[in-house]
Amino acid sequence: TSQACAACKFQRRKCPVDCPLAPYFPAEANQRFLSCKRLFGVSNMLRFLRDADPADKEETMKSLIYEAEVRDKDPVHGCYGIISQLTERVRGLQRELELTRS
Amino acid sequence: TSQACAACKFQRRKCPVDCPLAPYFPAEANQRFLSCKRLFGVSNMLRFLRDADPADKEETMKSLIYEAEVRDKDPVHGCYGIISQLTERVRGLQRELELTRS
Repeated sequence: TSQACAACKFQRRKCPVDCPLAPYFPAEANQRFLSCKRLFGVSNMLRFLRDADPADKEETMKSLIYEAEVRDKDPVHGCYGIISQLTERVRGLQRELELTRS
Repeated sequence: TSQACAACKFQRRKCPVDCPLAPYFPAEANQRFLSCKRLFGVSNMLRFLRDADPADKEETMKSLIYEAEVRDKDPVHGCYGIISQLTERVRGLQRELELTRS
């Protein structure tokens, strides 16, 4: 069963055995692929993947996918929104800790 | 003085009076433009800007610029790296707070 990955399916081409995107976008991960395509574009993703050290390729793609999915949910703030919230949370907990200690 | 913005300068074209990228990439913000171009591409940025509600345009561009600059510093993890660290920090502070209270 050589089902095309979501990226090749979208580009309506045969999915080669060594398709660099297939490990990250299996046929059923169509929505994930579309999010990434929308935010970065296919050629950008391929470049990031190519430029990454072999040991870093998976982490690089995971973080790009994460960013794209967050941007899908919050097109205005993306990851910046999550980082702002977490930073506020850290400040709040630090204040609480100081108060509890004194 | 009608200096071209960093985006138009890069594309070697005259910067129109209503250039949508000029407010975010003044001539001296060349590095910021290159980071965004690398991660998203110019046409993607223009699309995000066009699709955003007028009231959200500035926040949208600010968060895209933030994401691109973080990715420049950490090409493997990008914003995901910062979010992981902050999440760890929140967990650590919560543990500390519980210990201090008990």
